[in-house]
Amino acid sequence: MYRIDCLQFANWSESIFREMREGGVDAVHVTIVYHETFRETVAEISKWNRWFEQYSHLIMHGRTAADIDLARETNRTAIFFGFQNPSPIEADIDLVEILHTLGVRFMQLSYNNQSLLATGCYEDEDPGITRMGKEVIGEMNRVGMVIDMSHSADRSTIEAAELSERPITITHANPHVWHAALRNKRDEVIRAVTNGGGMMGFSLYPHHLKDKSDCTVQSFCQMVADAADTYGVEHFGLGSDLCQDQPDSIVTWMRVGRWTKGIDYGEGSAAAPGFPPQPSWFASNLDFGNIEAGLADVGFDSAEVAGLMGDNWYRFFAESFGPVEAGH
Amino acid sequence: MYRIDCLQFANWSESIFREMREGGVDAVHVTIVYHETFRETVAEISKWNRWFEQYSHLIMHGRTAADIDLARETNRTAIFFGFQNPSPIEADIDLVEILHTLGVRFMQLSYNNQSLLATGCYEDEDPGITRMGKEVIGEMNRVGMVIDMSHSADRSTIEAAELSERPITITHANPHVWHAALRNKRDEVIRAVTNGGGMMGFSLYPHHLKDKSDCTVQSFCQMVADAADTYGVEHFGLGSDLCQDQPDSIVTWMRVGRWTKGIDYGEGSAAAPGFPPQPSWFASNLDFGNIEAGLADVGFDSAEVAGLMGDNWYRFFAESFGPVEAGH
Repeated sequence: MYRIDCLQFANWSESIFREMREGGVDAVHVTIVYHETFRETVAEISKWNRWFEQYSHLIMHGRTAADIDLARETNRTAIFFGFQNPSPIEADIDLVEILHTLGVRFMQLSYNNQSLLATGCYEDEDPGITRMGKEVIGEMNRVGMVIDMSHSADRSTIEAAELSERPITITHANPHVWHAALRNKRDEVIRAVTNGGGMMGFSLYPHHLKDKSDCTVQSFCQMVADAADTYGVEHFGLGSDLCQDQPDSIVTWMRVGRWTKGIDYGEGSAAAPGFPPQPSWFASNLDFGNIEAGLADVGFDSAEVAGLMGDNWYRFFAESFGPVEAGH
Repeated sequence: MYRIDCLQFANWSESIFREMREGGVDAVHVTIVYHETFRETVAEISKWNRWFEQYSHLIMHGRTAADIDLARETNRTAIFFGFQNPSPIEADIDLVEILHTLGVRFMQLSYNNQSLLATGCYEDEDPGITRMGKEVIGEMNRVGMVIDMSHSADRSTIEAAELSERPITITHANPHVWHAALRNKRDEVIRAVTNGGGMMGFSLYPHHLKDKSDCTVQSFCQMVADAADTYGVEHFGLGSDLCQDQPDSIVTWMRVGRWTKGIDYGEGSAAAPGFPPQPSWFASNLDFGNIEAGLADVGFDSAEVAGLMGDNWYRFFAESFGPVEAGH
């Protein structure tokens, strides 16, 4: 059984890398940029390259699903790069291949706002995938970079699922029917993604949880069970959205980047602008066992638990990160 | 027997790619930039990525020596990227690994002028490898990017050979004793490079040839024989410096980049500022057979001819392009 988390954005440190090992985490999809330019993104990749050298006993750069097996054999965690926004490709489609070569495996087509490619979930209007968006979806399909629609608007997400020739993802969100957050996904959106063979990662970010920081592990796992019943258990995994050790200035950067001189509270509010506290049963990379036990408690069998904890993501990674197979 | 040319800078086209196939050229080290910034260099890599897609039946991106075998099996030419100047890494040592990941395998530490790393062969003073130069040599050694000193000054070249823990190269130049051009290399320089296990590629650029455009294939091959006798045949190959189909504006860019608002004629002159005509026996990628025959005529046996035409570069590529082996 693999243990894979398909989204984290921690304030990375040796301490967190050690916690990943103690927590038995085989692979993590890490957000390396939110709103950065190409050149700033390269600097972030360089920062990771230095960490891969310095902490080579704890982490390694993951490029393929097989790298997760290498990481397990050598007692390390494989780190897969992703973007929450297409800003790193600027207006240059060739940068998709350049960034894939540098190891990037996930890119969100929009983050809350309208992008050059798609609409974000905070816009009033969603005109769907743009002209450039259609081209970039084709290029991402060609090289093996996964389309992530976590922060995109509904129509854009459904169109992306239809336009993409390969399965797409919502790496971190929950069903809207369980908790009616703006970022959680309505039935027709989840259906579009999973019908196309895509994957969704359940989020542990309190704003995405019923009862927020007070959400119980039982409630979370029952939500997983209901989603599995509705869409098929094989389409789900975890995408915790864990932002461990981050100062509140970071959630401000996520929300406002450089697109406004004002302030946008996103899922927070003027009264509570910072990161909300994590539920007690999922505060760090040490806590995946609580979810694993909770999934068994709501009735999943051991193969289903294994799928949800990482095996489903492993299969998806194996199908998604290379060029399209001949005859595909 | 491999046929490998360790430097060309053509005005690339389908016609030249076809000529490479007709000429039986298995691999070419191509200069992708002279004086470009990092971002401009990425755009050049993107241009090649498009050619690799468009002309996938003729060329492929070479990253390892084994890729040359794949190219032969699939009737293509493997293209290896190199820089004539360290300008693409700007003042950022992390860009060495970034560019290696993007496929770059050779970098000159200086081009005619002083760089951040080393001195060029046109400077009056050569203070040797700089502080940053020492750091970058270590980083190039670590990731497997080859140090090329073709356009560097003597002291800098000798120091680079001493400082580098892996063999270095002069990809394109000839012995100064044969033709006293500023760019050709004196005995102590060739000795420093070859004693360290390094390689030198013989140039077919007329300014580097005795009698320039009128140089005979016999004279060229006798020069090769004399160098092989002096330094050992295993240290040599070809680095033709072929600049096929280039307009004269390109030789101006090579010489002046953006470092002067004036004009520098380099190896040319006000009376002859452009590219000199190639010798009749080496005008294109179709003509390597003339050199192969000429090498046999001056007395090399078939294994030596094979070594000079490509097998020596193949061995060097196999040892040079990856991270240092454990225990190396």
